[in-house]
Amino acid sequence: MNNQIEGVLFTVARQIENEGGAVLHLMRNDSPQFVKFGECYMSELFPGAIKAWKMHKLQTQNFSVPIGRIKLVLFDAREDSETKNKLIEIELGRPNSYYLVTIPPGVWYGFQSISALHSLIVNCTDMPHDKEESIGLDISNTFIPYKWNF
Amino acid sequence: MNNQIEGVLFTVARQIENEGGAVLHLMRNDSPQFVKFGECYMSELFPGAIKAWKMHKLQTQNFSVPIGRIKLVLFDAREDSETKNKLIEIELGRPNSYYLVTIPPGVWYGFQSISALHSLIVNCTDMPHDKEESIGLDISNTFIPYKWNF
Repeated sequence: MNNQIEGVLFTVARQIENEGGAVLHLMRNDSPQFVKFGECYMSELFPGAIKAWKMHKLQTQNFSVPIGRIKLVLFDAREDSETKNKLIEIELGRPNSYYLVTIPPGVWYGFQSISALHSLIVNCTDMPHDKEESIGLDISNTFIPYKWNF
Repeated sequence: MNNQIEGVLFTVARQIENEGGAVLHLMRNDSPQFVKFGECYMSELFPGAIKAWKMHKLQTQNFSVPIGRIKLVLFDAREDSETKNKLIEIELGRPNSYYLVTIPPGVWYGFQSISALHSLIVNCTDMPHDKEESIGLDISNTFIPYKWNF
């Protein structure tokens, strides 16, 4: 599944089941994906909610979905990419699809929660939030060839 | 509430409510609490579940509770601490008690989930997990003067 879009990685992350609840790995400073710690924050999605679209000019995303289930859609609009114009769609959630997802700058992404309860994304980026370095597009834009169900 | 136990910090963290679900801050590389990135992982707790007790010799914990509600109990067993033998108990959860909690080495901690659904802890430690540097104690030990309800 990796390299369907250049630079996007899906790395299987550990889920250690315990009696009281699982321990869920995301990233360590010796993980191959780790470059620099910028910020760790969480994003909650209510059932059916869509958060789309966003693209970062500088920041790399490193996230997983420990709670609930989301559909992630990625679109490569980078002029110099070998996978330019490629769009992929993947479901993320435990136990069968618990990944550390790495999204490099220049790739558009959007989420939709597809579980009956709320979902949670935990993201460890390589630079703190800076609204100047990201661009948003409305979900009904005509630039990205994808139609959300809502 | 800070400094009830020496070195333990409760920092109000931002909750940015959006239509689709909140964005929940934890830590940035320019946060006062940030020293070094070691590992980010999540710990899930089923309703009523207890995860206790643990103490780290080297690692500092930096966590919040974005989902559900937990009771956190801390006990200071450090010989050289000004708050030696002090025990504190606090409920953590949104919206009224969403904190970045910083626990330095040497302080014992334990959790119990007190919400009807599962709870989740997101922890950004200053060093990767190393089983050699932490000590566990059974919940029914007689060293820590606390009795869990279970």
